[in-house]
Amino acid sequence: MTRIRLTLRYDGGAYHGWQVQQNAVTVQQTLQDAIERITGVRSGVIGCSRTDAGVHADMFCCTFDTDSPLRADKLCYALNAVLPRDIAVYDAIEVAPDFHPRYDAKGKRYVYRIYNGRHRNPFYEGHAVFINRPLDDVAMDKAAKAFLGTHDFAAFCAAGSSVEDTVRTVTHAAVTRKGDVVTFSVQADGFLYNMVRIMAGTLLDIAAGKIDAADLPHIIDSLDRSRAGNTAPADGLCLQTVYY
Amino acid sequence: MTRIRLTLRYDGGAYHGWQVQQNAVTVQQTLQDAIERITGVRSGVIGCSRTDAGVHADMFCCTFDTDSPLRADKLCYALNAVLPRDIAVYDAIEVAPDFHPRYDAKGKRYVYRIYNGRHRNPFYEGHAVFINRPLDDVAMDKAAKAFLGTHDFAAFCAAGSSVEDTVRTVTHAAVTRKGDVVTFSVQADGFLYNMVRIMAGTLLDIAAGKIDAADLPHIIDSLDRSRAGNTAPADGLCLQTVYY
Repeated sequence: MTRIRLTLRYDGGAYHGWQVQQNAVTVQQTLQDAIERITGVRSGVIGCSRTDAGVHADMFCCTFDTDSPLRADKLCYALNAVLPRDIAVYDAIEVAPDFHPRYDAKGKRYVYRIYNGRHRNPFYEGHAVFINRPLDDVAMDKAAKAFLGTHDFAAFCAAGSSVEDTVRTVTHAAVTRKGDVVTFSVQADGFLYNMVRIMAGTLLDIAAGKIDAADLPHIIDSLDRSRAGNTAPADGLCLQTVYY
Repeated sequence: MTRIRLTLRYDGGAYHGWQVQQNAVTVQQTLQDAIERITGVRSGVIGCSRTDAGVHADMFCCTFDTDSPLRADKLCYALNAVLPRDIAVYDAIEVAPDFHPRYDAKGKRYVYRIYNGRHRNPFYEGHAVFINRPLDDVAMDKAAKAFLGTHDFAAFCAAGSSVEDTVRTVTHAAVTRKGDVVTFSVQADGFLYNMVRIMAGTLLDIAAGKIDAADLPHIIDSLDRSRAGNTAPADGLCLQTVYY
Protein backbone atom coordinates (compact mmCIF):
# COMPACT_ATOMS: atom_id res chain seq x y z
CA MET A 1 0.00 0.00 0.00
CA THR A 2 1.23 3.45 -0.88
CA ARG A 3 -0.18 6.61 0.67
CA ILE A 4 -0.67 9.32 -1.93
CA ARG A 5 -1.22 12.98 -1.10
CA LEU A 6 -3.23 14.86 -3.70
CA THR A 7 -3.33 18.64 -3.86
CA LEU A 8 -6.42 19.99 -5.54
CA ARG A 9 -8.27 23.12 -6.47
CA TYR A 10 -12.02 23.27 -6.63
CA ASP A 11 -14.78 25.68 -7.33
CA GLY A 12 -17.17 24.65 -4.56
CA GLY A 13 -20.24 26.35 -6.04
CA ALA A 14 -21.88 23.12 -7.17
CA TYR A 15 -20.96 21.01 -4.11
CA HIS A 16 -22.40 20.51 -0.66
CA GLY A 17 -18.96 20.96 0.81
CA TRP A 18 -16.10 18.51 1.08
CA GLN A 19 -17.43 15.68 3.19
CA VAL A 20 -19.50 12.77 1.88
CA GLN A 21 -23.21 13.19 2.59
CA GLN A 22 -26.17 10.90 2.16
CA ASN A 23 -28.19 12.84 -0.39
CA ALA A 24 -25.95 15.52 -1.80
CA VAL A 25 -22.96 15.71 -4.12
CA THR A 26 -19.72 16.54 -2.34
CA VAL A 27 -16.11 17.02 -3.41
CA GLN A 28 -14.89 14.03 -1.38
CA GLN A 29 -17.38 11.68 -3.02
CA THR A 30 -16.65 13.05 -6.50
CA LEU A 31 -12.94 12.54 -5.94
CA GLN A 32 -13.46 9.01 -4.55
CA ASP A 33 -15.50 8.19 -7.66
CA ALA A 34 -12.67 9.47 -9.88
CA ILE A 35 -10.03 7.48 -7.98
CA GLU A 36 -12.15 4.35 -8.27
CA ARG A 37 -12.47 4.87 -12.03
CA ILE A 38 -8.69 5.15 -12.38
CA THR A 39 -7.49 2.49 -9.92
CA GLY A 40 -10.46 0.15 -10.06
CA VAL A 41 -10.65 0.14 -6.24
CA ARG A 42 -12.84 2.22 -3.91
CA SER A 43 -10.51 4.10 -1.55
CA GLY A 44 -11.47 6.30 1.35
CA VAL A 45 -10.01 9.80 0.97
CA ILE A 46 -9.04 11.85 4.04
CA GLY A 47 -9.15 15.63 3.67
CA CYS A 48 -7.23 18.43 5.38
CA SER A 49 -10.41 20.28 6.26
CA ARG A 50 -14.18 20.07 5.97
CA THR A 51 -15.09 22.99 3.77
CA ASP A 52 -18.76 24.04 3.80
CA ALA A 53 -21.20 24.00 0.92
CA GLY A 54 -20.20 26.64 -1.64
CA VAL A 55 -16.72 27.23 -0.20
CA HIS A 56 -13.80 27.08 -2.66
CA ALA A 57 -10.25 25.82 -2.35
CA ASP A 58 -7.19 26.98 -4.21
CA MET A 59 -5.14 24.40 -2.30
CA PHE A 60 -6.73 21.43 -0.60
CA CYS A 61 -4.72 18.38 0.45
CA CYS A 62 -6.04 14.88 0.93
CA THR A 63 -4.65 11.37 1.08
CA PHE A 64 -5.66 7.88 0.10
CA ASP A 65 -3.96 4.50 0.16
CA THR A 66 -3.59 2.50 -3.01
CA ASP A 67 -1.92 -0.54 -4.56
CA SER A 68 -2.19 1.02 -8.00
CA PRO A 69 1.01 0.67 -10.04
CA LEU A 70 0.39 4.14 -11.52
CA ARG A 71 3.12 6.58 -10.54
CA ALA A 72 1.91 9.58 -8.53
CA ASP A 73 2.59 12.10 -11.30
CA LYS A 74 0.71 9.99 -13.86
CA LEU A 75 -2.19 9.69 -11.44
CA CYS A 76 -2.54 13.47 -11.53
CA TYR A 77 -3.15 13.48 -15.30
CA ALA A 78 -5.39 10.42 -15.12
CA LEU A 79 -7.59 11.93 -12.41
CA ASN A 80 -7.91 15.26 -14.22
CA ALA A 81 -9.14 13.41 -17.28
CA VAL A 82 -12.12 12.02 -15.36
CA LEU A 83 -12.83 14.71 -12.75
CA PRO A 84 -15.47 17.35 -13.57
CA ARG A 85 -14.29 20.79 -14.73
CA ASP A 86 -14.73 22.38 -11.32
CA ILE A 87 -12.24 20.08 -9.58
CA ALA A 88 -8.61 19.55 -10.61
CA VAL A 89 -5.62 17.84 -9.02
CA TYR A 90 -2.37 19.75 -9.51
CA ASP A 91 0.01 17.71 -7.43
CA ALA A 92 0.27 14.07 -6.36
CA ILE A 93 3.13 12.70 -4.32
CA GLU A 94 3.86 9.60 -2.28
CA VAL A 95 3.96 10.38 1.46
CA ALA A 96 4.86 8.42 4.59
CA PRO A 97 2.21 5.83 5.60
CA ASP A 98 1.48 7.75 8.82
CA PHE A 99 1.05 11.13 7.16
CA HIS A 100 -2.33 12.69 8.00
CA PRO A 101 -3.51 15.70 5.97
CA ARG A 102 -5.46 17.24 8.88
CA TYR A 103 -3.37 16.38 11.95
CA ASP A 104 -0.06 17.10 10.22
CA ALA A 105 -1.15 20.49 8.91
CA LYS A 106 0.79 23.22 10.74
CA GLY A 107 -1.60 25.90 9.63
CA LYS A 108 -3.99 27.14 6.99
CA ARG A 109 -4.69 30.41 5.28
CA TYR A 110 -8.15 31.41 4.11
CA VAL A 111 -9.20 34.39 2.05
CA TYR A 112 -12.66 35.96 2.16
CA ARG A 113 -13.51 38.16 -0.82
CA ILE A 114 -15.97 41.02 -1.04
CA TYR A 115 -16.87 42.70 -4.32
CA ASN A 116 -17.34 46.30 -3.25
CA GLY A 117 -18.32 48.00 -6.52
CA ARG A 118 -21.48 50.08 -7.02
CA HIS A 119 -23.07 47.32 -9.08
CA ARG A 120 -22.64 43.56 -9.01
CA ASN A 121 -19.92 42.08 -11.22
CA PRO A 122 -20.72 38.85 -13.12
CA PHE A 123 -17.06 37.78 -12.98
CA TYR A 124 -17.18 37.64 -9.16
CA GLU A 125 -20.55 35.87 -8.88
CA GLY A 126 -20.18 32.90 -6.55
CA HIS A 127 -16.62 33.91 -5.65
CA ALA A 128 -17.15 37.06 -3.61
CA VAL A 129 -19.96 38.51 -1.57
CA PHE A 130 -21.34 41.68 -3.17
CA ILE A 131 -21.65 44.72 -0.92
CA ASN A 132 -22.26 48.04 -2.64
CA ARG A 133 -22.07 50.47 0.29
CA PRO A 134 -18.49 51.78 0.44
CA LEU A 135 -16.38 49.74 2.87
CA ASP A 136 -13.56 51.34 4.84
CA ASP A 137 -10.97 48.65 4.24
CA VAL A 138 -8.34 50.55 6.27
CA ALA A 139 -10.59 50.54 9.35
CA MET A 140 -11.43 46.85 8.75
CA ASP A 141 -7.73 46.02 8.50
CA LYS A 142 -7.02 47.85 11.75
CA ALA A 143 -9.88 46.02 13.49
CA ALA A 144 -8.74 42.64 12.12
CA LYS A 145 -5.49 42.94 14.09
CA ALA A 146 -7.50 42.09 17.23
CA PHE A 147 -7.66 38.49 15.95
CA LEU A 148 -3.86 38.14 16.05
CA GLY A 149 -2.34 35.94 18.74
CA THR A 150 -3.55 33.01 20.80
CA HIS A 151 -7.16 33.34 21.92
CA ASP A 152 -10.10 31.18 22.85
CA PHE A 153 -12.22 31.79 19.73
CA ALA A 154 -15.44 30.26 21.11
CA ALA A 155 -17.27 33.47 20.13
CA PHE A 156 -16.23 32.75 16.53
CA CYS A 157 -17.39 29.16 16.38
CA ALA A 158 -20.77 28.09 14.99
CA ALA A 159 -23.22 27.21 17.76
CA GLY A 160 -23.62 23.44 18.12
CA SER A 161 -20.05 22.61 17.13
CA SER A 162 -18.80 19.66 19.15
CA VAL A 163 -15.14 20.74 19.26
CA GLU A 164 -13.76 20.90 22.80
CA ASP A 165 -10.63 23.01 22.47
CA THR A 166 -11.54 26.37 20.97
CA VAL A 167 -8.12 27.97 21.45
CA ARG A 168 -6.35 28.86 18.20
CA THR A 169 -3.32 30.96 17.28
CA VAL A 170 -3.83 33.49 14.50
CA THR A 171 -0.55 34.53 12.84
CA HIS A 172 -1.90 36.74 10.08
CA ALA A 173 -5.07 38.82 9.75
CA ALA A 174 -5.35 41.59 7.18
CA VAL A 175 -7.88 43.39 5.02
CA THR A 176 -6.63 44.75 1.70
CA ARG A 177 -8.28 46.42 -1.28
CA LYS A 178 -7.44 46.12 -4.96
CA GLY A 179 -9.88 48.25 -6.93
CA ASP A 180 -13.40 47.09 -6.08
CA VAL A 181 -12.24 43.86 -4.42
CA VAL A 182 -11.75 43.84 -0.66
CA THR A 183 -10.02 40.73 0.71
CA PHE A 184 -9.80 39.52 4.30
CA SER A 185 -6.99 37.01 4.69
CA VAL A 186 -6.35 35.09 7.87
CA GLN A 187 -3.84 32.43 8.82
CA ALA A 188 -3.94 30.25 11.94
CA ASP A 189 -2.75 26.92 13.24
CA GLY A 190 -6.32 25.73 12.84
CA PHE A 191 -9.85 27.02 12.45
CA LEU A 192 -13.13 26.35 14.22
CA TYR A 193 -16.36 25.62 12.41
CA ASN A 194 -17.41 28.77 10.48
CA MET A 195 -14.62 30.76 12.17
CA VAL A 196 -13.48 32.71 9.09
CA ARG A 197 -17.03 33.45 7.98
CA ILE A 198 -17.94 34.75 11.45
CA MET A 199 -14.74 36.85 11.52
CA ALA A 200 -15.62 38.25 8.07
CA GLY A 201 -19.21 38.94 9.15
CA THR A 202 -17.95 40.73 12.26
CA LEU A 203 -15.56 42.90 10.23
CA LEU A 204 -18.45 43.76 7.90
CA ASP A 205 -20.60 44.70 10.92
CA ILE A 206 -17.75 46.92 12.11
CA ALA A 207 -17.58 48.58 8.67
CA ALA A 208 -21.36 49.09 8.80
CA GLY A 209 -21.14 50.72 12.24
CA LYS A 210 -23.16 47.92 13.88
CA ILE A 211 -20.21 46.83 16.02
CA ASP A 212 -17.61 49.20 17.48
CA ALA A 213 -14.09 48.17 16.47
CA ALA A 214 -12.90 48.91 20.02
CA ASP A 215 -15.27 46.19 21.28
CA LEU A 216 -13.72 43.42 19.18
CA PRO A 217 -11.16 42.33 21.84
CA HIS A 218 -14.02 42.17 24.38
CA ILE A 219 -16.18 40.17 21.98
CA ILE A 220 -13.32 37.68 21.61
CA ASP A 221 -12.87 37.54 25.41
CA SER A 222 -16.63 37.06 25.98
CA LEU A 223 -16.52 33.58 24.32
CA ASP A 224 -20.13 34.44 23.42
CA ARG A 225 -21.14 33.60 19.83
CA SER A 226 -24.12 35.94 20.04
CA ARG A 227 -21.86 38.97 20.48
CA ALA A 228 -19.91 38.41 17.24
CA GLY A 229 -21.33 39.30 13.82
CA ASN A 230 -23.34 37.22 11.39
CA THR A 231 -21.80 34.32 9.52
CA ALA A 232 -20.86 35.81 6.15
CA PRO A 233 -22.02 33.88 3.03
CA ALA A 234 -20.02 30.81 2.00
CA ASP A 235 -19.26 31.80 -1.59
CA GLY A 236 -16.80 34.54 -0.58
CA LEU A 237 -14.59 32.00 1.21
CA CYS A 238 -11.62 30.17 -0.27
CA LEU A 239 -9.07 27.92 1.43
CA GLN A 240 -5.91 29.41 -0.02
CA THR A 241 -3.03 27.45 1.50
CA VAL A 242 -2.39 24.49 3.79
CA TYR A 243 1.01 24.50 5.47
CA TYR A 244 2.86 21.28 6.37
CA MET B 1 -37.51 60.03 -26.56
CA THR B 2 -34.22 59.80 -24.72
CA ARG B 3 -31.27 57.74 -25.93
CA ILE B 4 -29.63 55.83 -23.08
CA ARG B 5 -26.20 54.29 -23.28
CA LEU B 6 -25.73 51.28 -21.02
CA THR B 7 -22.32 49.87 -20.13
CA LEU B 8 -22.41 46.24 -19.13
CA ARG B 9 -20.29 43.29 -18.14
CA TYR B 10 -21.24 39.77 -19.00
CA ASP B 11 -19.99 36.27 -18.62
CA GLY B 12 -20.83 34.98 -22.09
CA GLY B 13 -20.53 31.29 -21.18
CA ALA B 14 -24.27 30.64 -21.23
CA TYR B 15 -25.10 32.79 -24.26
CA HIS B 16 -25.03 32.31 -28.00
CA GLY B 17 -23.24 35.63 -28.36
CA TRP B 18 -24.63 39.15 -28.31
CA GLN B 19 -27.01 39.28 -31.22
CA VAL B 20 -30.64 38.09 -31.14
CA GLN B 21 -31.08 34.68 -32.75
CA GLN B 22 -34.13 32.66 -33.62
CA ASN B 23 -33.62 29.63 -31.38
CA ALA B 24 -30.90 30.52 -28.89
CA VAL B 25 -30.56 32.76 -25.86
CA THR B 26 -28.38 35.81 -26.49
CA VAL B 27 -27.23 38.74 -24.38
CA GLN B 28 -29.09 41.29 -26.54
CA GLN B 29 -32.38 39.46 -26.16
CA THR B 30 -31.90 38.98 -22.41
CA LEU B 31 -31.18 42.70 -22.03
CA GLN B 32 -34.18 43.67 -24.17
CA ASP B 33 -36.37 41.45 -21.98
CA ALA B 34 -35.03 43.19 -18.86
CA ILE B 35 -35.59 46.68 -20.31
CA GLU B 36 -39.14 45.72 -21.24
CA ARG B 37 -39.79 44.50 -17.68
CA ILE B 38 -38.56 47.81 -16.26
CA THR B 39 -40.00 50.31 -18.77
CA GLY B 40 -43.05 48.35 -19.93
CA VAL B 41 -42.04 48.92 -23.56
CA ARG B 42 -40.10 46.64 -25.95
CA SER B 43 -37.06 48.62 -27.15
CA GLY B 44 -34.49 47.59 -29.72
CA VAL B 45 -30.98 47.66 -28.26
CA ILE B 46 -27.99 48.48 -30.48
CA GLY B 47 -24.62 47.03 -29.41
CA CYS B 48 -21.04 48.20 -29.93
CA SER B 49 -19.99 44.80 -31.27
CA ARG B 50 -21.32 41.35 -32.08
CA THR B 51 -19.50 39.08 -29.69
CA ASP B 52 -19.54 35.37 -30.52
CA ALA B 53 -21.03 32.56 -28.47
CA GLY B 54 -19.04 32.10 -25.26
CA VAL B 55 -17.12 35.38 -25.54
CA HIS B 56 -17.13 37.62 -22.46
CA ALA B 57 -17.22 41.38 -22.03
CA ASP B 58 -15.82 43.45 -19.21
CA MET B 59 -17.09 46.58 -20.97
CA PHE B 60 -19.80 46.45 -23.59
CA CYS B 61 -21.76 49.54 -24.63
CA CYS B 62 -25.21 49.60 -26.14
CA THR B 63 -28.02 52.10 -26.61
CA PHE B 64 -31.78 52.15 -26.65
CA ASP B 65 -34.41 54.88 -26.92
CA THR B 66 -37.03 55.26 -24.22
CA ASP B 67 -39.77 57.51 -22.91
CA SER B 68 -39.36 56.06 -19.42
CA PRO B 69 -39.38 58.71 -16.70
CA LEU B 70 -36.75 56.67 -14.79
CA ARG B 71 -33.48 58.58 -14.47
CA ALA B 72 -30.50 56.83 -16.10
CA ASP B 73 -28.75 56.07 -12.79
CA LYS B 74 -31.94 54.54 -11.33
CA LEU B 75 -32.34 52.44 -14.47
CA CYS B 76 -28.98 50.83 -13.73
CA TYR B 77 -30.17 49.52 -10.34
CA ALA B 78 -33.58 48.52 -11.73
CA LEU B 79 -32.05 46.51 -14.59
CA ASN B 80 -29.56 44.74 -12.31
CA ALA B 81 -32.46 43.63 -10.13
CA VAL B 82 -34.04 41.73 -13.03
CA LEU B 83 -31.03 40.69 -15.15
CA PRO B 84 -29.56 37.20 -14.59
CA ARG B 85 -26.39 36.90 -12.50
CA ASP B 86 -24.10 36.64 -15.52
CA ILE B 87 -25.05 40.07 -16.92
CA ALA B 88 -24.82 43.38 -15.05
CA VAL B 89 -25.12 47.01 -16.06
CA TYR B 90 -22.60 49.27 -14.34
CA ASP B 91 -23.24 52.58 -16.05
CA ALA B 92 -26.21 54.22 -17.71
CA ILE B 93 -26.12 57.75 -19.12
CA GLU B 94 -28.22 59.86 -21.45
CA VAL B 95 -26.44 60.42 -24.77
CA ALA B 96 -27.14 62.54 -27.87
CA PRO B 97 -29.99 61.18 -30.06
CA ASP B 98 -27.54 60.51 -32.90
CA PHE B 99 -24.98 58.61 -30.78
CA HIS B 100 -24.26 55.15 -32.19
CA PRO B 101 -22.37 52.64 -30.02
CA ARG B 102 -20.68 50.92 -32.98
CA TYR B 103 -20.07 53.74 -35.48
CA ASP B 104 -18.97 56.20 -32.79
CA ALA B 105 -16.49 53.78 -31.18
CA LYS B 106 -12.95 55.03 -31.84
CA GLY B 107 -11.44 51.70 -30.89
CA LYS B 108 -11.68 48.55 -28.83
CA ARG B 109 -9.35 46.47 -26.76
CA TYR B 110 -9.69 42.71 -26.42
CA VAL B 111 -7.82 40.32 -24.18
CA TYR B 112 -7.30 36.64 -24.92
CA ARG B 113 -6.34 34.52 -21.91
CA ILE B 114 -4.45 31.25 -21.81
CA TYR B 115 -4.07 29.21 -18.64
CA ASN B 116 -0.57 27.78 -19.04
CA GLY B 117 -0.19 25.67 -15.91
CA ARG B 118 0.69 21.98 -15.90
CA HIS B 119 -2.85 21.01 -14.96
CA ARG B 120 -6.17 22.70 -15.65
CA ASN B 121 -7.39 25.26 -13.12
CA PRO B 122 -11.11 25.23 -12.20
CA PHE B 123 -11.04 28.98 -11.54
CA TYR B 124 -10.15 29.69 -15.18
CA GLU B 125 -12.61 27.23 -16.71
CA GLY B 126 -14.61 29.01 -19.40
CA HIS B 127 -12.45 32.14 -19.07
CA ALA B 128 -9.14 31.00 -20.51
CA VAL B 129 -8.02 28.32 -22.93
CA PHE B 130 -5.93 25.67 -21.16
CA ILE B 131 -2.58 24.81 -22.76
CA ASN B 132 -0.17 22.78 -20.66
CA ARG B 133 2.91 22.72 -22.88
CA PRO B 134 5.15 25.60 -21.77
CA LEU B 135 4.53 28.73 -23.87
CA ASP B 136 7.34 31.16 -24.62
CA ASP B 137 5.42 34.34 -23.88
CA VAL B 138 8.45 36.52 -24.70
CA ALA B 139 8.65 35.07 -28.21
CA MET B 140 4.87 35.42 -28.61
CA ASP B 141 5.08 39.05 -27.52
CA LYS B 142 7.84 39.75 -30.02
CA ALA B 143 5.85 38.07 -32.80
CA ALA B 144 2.66 39.98 -31.86
CA LYS B 145 4.37 43.27 -32.77
CA ALA B 146 3.92 42.32 -36.45
CA PHE B 147 0.21 43.12 -36.00
CA LEU B 148 0.97 46.77 -35.13
CA GLY B 149 0.11 49.44 -37.66
CA THR B 150 -2.36 49.72 -40.54
CA HIS B 151 -2.74 46.50 -42.51
CA ASP B 152 -5.28 44.71 -44.63
CA PHE B 153 -6.17 41.93 -42.16
CA ALA B 154 -8.08 39.76 -44.66
CA ALA B 155 -5.90 36.79 -43.59
CA PHE B 156 -7.27 37.27 -40.06
CA CYS B 157 -10.94 37.39 -40.95
CA ALA B 158 -13.25 34.37 -40.80
CA ALA B 159 -13.96 32.97 -44.25
CA GLY B 160 -17.44 33.92 -45.45
CA SER B 161 -17.49 37.28 -43.70
CA SER B 162 -19.31 39.85 -45.85
CA VAL B 163 -17.27 42.86 -44.72
CA GLU B 164 -15.76 44.77 -47.66
CA ASP B 165 -13.05 46.88 -46.07
CA THR B 166 -10.62 44.63 -44.24
CA VAL B 167 -8.07 47.34 -43.43
CA ARG B 168 -7.66 48.03 -39.69
CA THR B 169 -5.16 49.92 -37.58
CA VAL B 170 -3.73 48.05 -34.58
CA THR B 171 -2.32 50.40 -31.92
CA HIS B 172 -1.43 47.84 -29.25
CA ALA B 173 -0.47 44.16 -29.40
CA ALA B 174 1.28 42.47 -26.52
CA VAL B 175 1.64 39.10 -24.80
CA THR B 176 2.32 39.13 -21.08
CA ARG B 177 2.59 36.47 -18.40
CA LYS B 178 1.52 36.61 -14.76
CA GLY B 179 2.27 33.25 -13.15
CA ASP B 180 0.46 30.59 -15.17
CA VAL B 181 -1.74 33.05 -17.04
CA VAL B 182 -0.58 34.27 -20.45
CA THR B 183 -2.58 37.17 -21.87
CA PHE B 184 -2.65 38.50 -25.42
CA SER B 185 -4.08 42.01 -25.52
CA VAL B 186 -4.79 43.88 -28.72
CA GLN B 187 -6.27 47.26 -29.45
CA ALA B 188 -7.44 48.52 -32.86
CA ASP B 189 -9.83 51.02 -34.43
CA GLY B 190 -12.01 48.05 -35.27
CA PHE B 191 -11.90 44.28 -35.61
CA LEU B 192 -12.95 41.84 -38.32
CA TYR B 193 -15.02 38.75 -37.65
CA ASN B 194 -12.94 36.34 -35.47
CA MET B 195 -9.87 38.56 -35.92
CA VAL B 196 -8.62 38.35 -32.31
CA ARG B 197 -9.24 34.62 -32.10
CA ILE B 198 -7.32 34.02 -35.36
CA MET B 199 -4.49 36.28 -34.11
CA ALA B 200 -4.39 34.32 -30.84
CA GLY B 201 -4.46 30.99 -32.69
CA THR B 202 -1.61 32.16 -34.92
CA LEU B 203 0.51 33.24 -31.93
CA LEU B 204 -0.15 29.82 -30.36
CA ASP B 205 0.95 28.13 -33.60
CA ILE B 206 4.12 30.24 -33.49
CA ALA B 207 4.74 29.16 -29.88
CA ALA B 208 4.19 25.54 -30.94
CA GLY B 209 6.70 25.89 -33.79
CA LYS B 210 4.03 25.28 -36.46
CA ILE B 211 4.43 28.79 -37.86
CA ASP B 212 7.74 30.68 -38.04
CA ALA B 213 7.49 34.07 -36.33
CA ALA B 214 9.49 35.61 -39.19
CA ASP B 215 6.66 34.60 -41.56
CA LEU B 216 3.96 36.54 -39.73
CA PRO B 217 4.42 39.79 -41.75
CA HIS B 218 4.17 37.72 -44.96
CA ILE B 219 1.08 35.91 -43.70
CA ILE B 220 -0.53 39.31 -43.06
CA ASP B 221 0.49 40.53 -46.53
CA SER B 222 -0.82 37.36 -48.20
CA LEU B 223 -4.43 38.29 -47.32
CA ASP B 224 -4.89 34.50 -47.28
CA ARG B 225 -6.93 33.15 -44.37
CA SER B 226 -5.54 29.65 -44.91
CA ARG B 227 -1.99 30.81 -44.08
CA ALA B 228 -2.90 32.15 -40.61
CA GLY B 229 -3.42 29.88 -37.59
CA ASN B 230 -6.55 28.22 -36.30
CA THR B 231 -9.33 30.23 -34.70
CA ALA B 232 -8.63 29.95 -30.95
CA PRO B 233 -11.59 28.89 -28.73
CA ALA B 234 -14.15 31.57 -27.82
CA ASP B 235 -14.01 31.24 -24.03
CA GLY B 236 -10.53 32.77 -23.76
CA LEU B 237 -11.76 36.02 -25.34
CA CYS B 238 -13.03 39.07 -23.49
CA LEU B 239 -13.92 42.51 -24.85
CA GLN B 240 -12.08 44.64 -22.32
CA THR B 241 -12.65 48.26 -23.34
CA VAL B 242 -14.57 50.28 -25.91
CA TYR B 243 -13.15 53.75 -26.57
CA TYR B 244 -15.36 56.72 -27.56
